[in-house]
Amino acid sequence: MSKTSYSACVLIIGNEILSGRTQDVNLNYIATRLGARGIPVREARCIPDIPEVIVSAVNECRTKYDFVFTTGGIGPTHDDITAECVAKAFEVPLERHPEAMRLLEEHYKNYPGGVNESRARMANVPKGGELLRNPVSKAPGFRIGNVHVMAGVPSIMQAMFDTLLPTLPEGDPVVMKSVSCRLREGDIAVALEAIQNRYPDLDIGSYPALHEGQPQVTLVAKGQDADAVGAAAQEIADMVRGFGEEPQLS
Amino acid sequence: MSKTSYSACVLIIGNEILSGRTQDVNLNYIATRLGARGIPVREARCIPDIPEVIVSAVNECRTKYDFVFTTGGIGPTHDDITAECVAKAFEVPLERHPEAMRLLEEHYKNYPGGVNESRARMANVPKGGELLRNPVSKAPGFRIGNVHVMAGVPSIMQAMFDTLLPTLPEGDPVVMKSVSCRLREGDIAVALEAIQNRYPDLDIGSYPALHEGQPQVTLVAKGQDADAVGAAAQEIADMVRGFGEEPQLS
Repeated sequence: MSKTSYSACVLIIGNEILSGRTQDVNLNYIATRLGARGIPVREARCIPDIPEVIVSAVNECRTKYDFVFTTGGIGPTHDDITAECVAKAFEVPLERHPEAMRLLEEHYKNYPGGVNESRARMANVPKGGELLRNPVSKAPGFRIGNVHVMAGVPSIMQAMFDTLLPTLPEGDPVVMKSVSCRLREGDIAVALEAIQNRYPDLDIGSYPALHEGQPQVTLVAKGQDADAVGAAAQEIADMVRGFGEEPQLS
Repeated sequence: MSKTSYSACVLIIGNEILSGRTQDVNLNYIATRLGARGIPVREARCIPDIPEVIVSAVNECRTKYDFVFTTGGIGPTHDDITAECVAKAFEVPLERHPEAMRLLEEHYKNYPGGVNESRARMANVPKGGELLRNPVSKAPGFRIGNVHVMAGVPSIMQAMFDTLLPTLPEGDPVVMKSVSCRLREGDIAVALEAIQNRYPDLDIGSYPALHEGQPQVTLVAKGQDADAVGAAAQEIADMVRGFGEEPQLS
């Protein structure tokens, strides 16, 4: 019997996100695509390059969620400690993976110095791990159990993620329909809640924004029952029209 | 005796971040400014609009860190549940705050319907909470204990945060110096680690990127001892020159 809904957690590993030096864009990329495959992201954490923090987050999240995806910390420098932390979390040794070494040697064959000891660290994989190909810069990520370890550089992370995505099971995709209008949240809150109550299995959200100083709101119906999502979005649009506004559907 | 270093945690509350519908930009805004005030962010979590999840994250993080900042979920609609969850976390009743009601009544006095029951929800504050002013759209956030509850809309969150920031204690600011160059991480990893080892109290990070297909790397020295950061950045720049590249300092 196939499970039709899975859960995922994203661990964004790196001091640069927490210091504000770097704006994370990986969560958004991963979340959108996992949702479409029926594996909604239920939690994301940004954590620093501290071994105990990484080990405990990996262990907590791999128990709690069906799939875990990590980004960051798999390069050749001293601050790249994700692979050794994941090995510790799984209580297995960190080993030099022969196929990963082969990929690195091929990639660096014409490069002065070749695969030196620093680069060879990128071939270290927890025992039992399976490589995740990296079409951009070759140094692979890996999967062990339900944990997927990827690069932090967005273009590389995206390439790794795109190659691994088709290997994941498919849940019922999360379907989302949006209705935007220039009403104020406070005017429609009661009517919107009534719609939420009629569709208890859907997640109906209200997202206000300011557009040129004027309040706008996007009302989103989301869930894994596409028919219910369509019907709820229709009710939301009708509700907006009842307030004398023309809804923008997407 | 004043504490010179504090820790902070950011809780980003909202299904829209986890679904990928919305790209979070609040963490970056908060982290940069807290770091400059000597209150580095040690962890951030994106969590869904599920009461038990919010309550347990608030309780876990307010114990673990000196300060907690939440964004999202304080509007007038049914999915805005942050205030009631924070009240549950602190085991205090949620009360209608008279000053918050006054601010809302003033703001909506010429608006048809005024402060209806939905809008009045935005004046609900856990007992003992203190208002955080919102110069943009008036509905306030609040502070209770070490937890600061703010809006999710970036312009409103920023205005709230800017007004509360000067009320926080000052730690030794986190100072950061960056050295960028067109070297590859794998070539400089050993020399960089040696510098890290000479400055064990600093956090020296290596952040690769691809620029028009060419590898680049930014080497960052960061810490609360400004002299040490300056000296380490100097050593990093000299190291880069030793590899025949001109470092870009910032």
